[in-house]
Amino acid sequence: MKQSSLLKRVAVLRDTLAHIPQDTVWIIQPENRRYLSGFKASDSQLTESSGSLLMNDKKAILITDSRYTVEAQKEAPAFQVVTLKKGLMESLPEILKGLKTKNLGFEEDFLIWGLHRQLTKQLKKLSPPVRLTPLNGLVDRMREIKDGSEIRKMQASAHLMSDILGEVIGGLKPGRTEMEVAWEIEGLAREAGAEDLAFPSIVASGPNSALPHAVPTNRKLRPREPIIMDVGIKKDGYCCDMTRTIFLGSPTPRFKKIYQIVREAQLSALQAIMPGIESTRPDAIARNIIKDAGFGDYFGHSLGHGVGLATHERPRLGPEKSVKLAKGMVVTVEPGIYLPGKGGVRLEEMVVIEKNGPKILTKDRHFYDFS
Amino acid sequence: MKQSSLLKRVAVLRDTLAHIPQDTVWIIQPENRRYLSGFKASDSQLTESSGSLLMNDKKAILITDSRYTVEAQKEAPAFQVVTLKKGLMESLPEILKGLKTKNLGFEEDFLIWGLHRQLTKQLKKLSPPVRLTPLNGLVDRMREIKDGSEIRKMQASAHLMSDILGEVIGGLKPGRTEMEVAWEIEGLAREAGAEDLAFPSIVASGPNSALPHAVPTNRKLRPREPIIMDVGIKKDGYCCDMTRTIFLGSPTPRFKKIYQIVREAQLSALQAIMPGIESTRPDAIARNIIKDAGFGDYFGHSLGHGVGLATHERPRLGPEKSVKLAKGMVVTVEPGIYLPGKGGVRLEEMVVIEKNGPKILTKDRHFYDFS
Repeated sequence: MKQSSLLKRVAVLRDTLAHIPQDTVWIIQPENRRYLSGFKASDSQLTESSGSLLMNDKKAILITDSRYTVEAQKEAPAFQVVTLKKGLMESLPEILKGLKTKNLGFEEDFLIWGLHRQLTKQLKKLSPPVRLTPLNGLVDRMREIKDGSEIRKMQASAHLMSDILGEVIGGLKPGRTEMEVAWEIEGLAREAGAEDLAFPSIVASGPNSALPHAVPTNRKLRPREPIIMDVGIKKDGYCCDMTRTIFLGSPTPRFKKIYQIVREAQLSALQAIMPGIESTRPDAIARNIIKDAGFGDYFGHSLGHGVGLATHERPRLGPEKSVKLAKGMVVTVEPGIYLPGKGGVRLEEMVVIEKNGPKILTKDRHFYDFS
Repeated sequence: MKQSSLLKRVAVLRDTLAHIPQDTVWIIQPENRRYLSGFKASDSQLTESSGSLLMNDKKAILITDSRYTVEAQKEAPAFQVVTLKKGLMESLPEILKGLKTKNLGFEEDFLIWGLHRQLTKQLKKLSPPVRLTPLNGLVDRMREIKDGSEIRKMQASAHLMSDILGEVIGGLKPGRTEMEVAWEIEGLAREAGAEDLAFPSIVASGPNSALPHAVPTNRKLRPREPIIMDVGIKKDGYCCDMTRTIFLGSPTPRFKKIYQIVREAQLSALQAIMPGIESTRPDAIARNIIKDAGFGDYFGHSLGHGVGLATHERPRLGPEKSVKLAKGMVVTVEPGIYLPGKGGVRLEEMVVIEKNGPKILTKDRHFYDFS
């Protein structure tokens, strides 16, 4: 991560500080932490943070413990690294005193209720007491719009994933198991230098493809049935997310028809994506096409979601909670139809919203045209 | 998971319900959810739950969405599966009305503050209103003591991991990179049928071994330097966690000495583990040995932690928050000494506490005796 980009983000956050009631913000969400500081560590369990940031108009502190001190200093040079000797609850009051904090903002969508309770108790003891008040999406909103360097990273991540998926699809044949195929994807991703998978690969064949979040099984691939491959990697911190549905041989007429409907829903939704439109609009377009074709009950999830440092982030492209789409957002468009016990089709593209519409970041391959 | 074990757990929880102020409990933590219901899904992101449980003295409900309905019904037959059509915030009030809930207990160490805020608002609207009150470790405490079937699973998990690690250690040689070795571990784990890694493998050589939570790099292994391998898999839901420090050729005198100190600390701590002793005691024993040898500043983490469905769970074996150890607990014993910039040694065993002391679950191999 370039130091200048990070400093710019810190500056933007400081500008925001002037307009909110909090004089200090406490950033605990791992992707937000990385976005602002460059600190790459991930949190293996929710209750085990590898660190957090405290920022006010003058200071930027990264609090961590001895396991991460060396990495933190190397990765986050703009932050003063403080290594805790005791637990956070014991140490935080003193650090806040040093910062002269009066009102500490916390990420309400990430702080655990029990931690908040303990911390409130600790902070009340201070004189003068420190108030603890919620922040809603402060950094998440910054992350919604990607800058040029982020889009380049996401493009690279998506291209690498597309190449890997292309190679794997080329080698699909009846008799291989879902798990073998998933494992091949992971192997190729690692060999190609991906940091990690963005999420566990989905390789779901036949009836399993009717489960939108299927876990790969020992089921063997068979001709003519749908094989949903929903895959993503993380590269330089940035995720990609793409789905193709593949058939070995010609699909049955039913799934040929379903595929065409899903593809039409996807292309129509993509066409509607523009800066300034409501995020509910593309979802409604895709959903109506699927509904009009008689499969309205079989598309249960949202059309798409934002992608970035996290696989799922703002904005959502669903039937509810509308926001205005904007240039620089990266979103997925992934309609699907799932017939329980029989099978499903999902097609997913990841796009960046440009001035005149969406630019597809994944490589546009392995779609069928059955029309 | 055997249906009878699950039903027993549900019964134990119901017994507890008679003794707490809450008439209904809401279980959202993924391992707690699996422990009680058998539902295996994991939550890919904190803000994206694949489901939760609602239980009172009569009913046991698993709430999920259309992505998981089929799995939920198959995996959790003792629970009535309710598939949400709308968001949780919109649906929960109605479900609670059906349950005649007056006081809903939530897991305070897992519920997000912002969700709690929204939910409180929703529940106040109900008539009569539903109170939302915190539960602290209700199911976590049940999970602390493993039953026979859990211990058998953990033994199997630890044996498989030991075999894999043994194979990998056998093939270590100078010139291989940390990442290659980590990748080999993961490959073997998958081939052997592990569900997943319990956590990302640590393979840290030379100066990298001074970072207790090092991420594998492209650094090549060299003779005589410490190579810390901290690895774990998940099998049938149960994690194992083990660490060996390996040298290719004879270590330098410094690390020979450090190794001996860490091993002595580990063996002495293990000897102290018994039902009925305080959890701080083994930590103090190991810490004193390391301190007396002059390395007190270089052992920054706790001695160990409980393991089970989660890699890190109750009880902690650290200098604080003492609890009484008991028969059936499974804990790690993992002292370490880390010299920044130079290297480190950590040795970790996973043991089940039996009547007369600890039984090592990992296979006891690949320790050196330099005395």
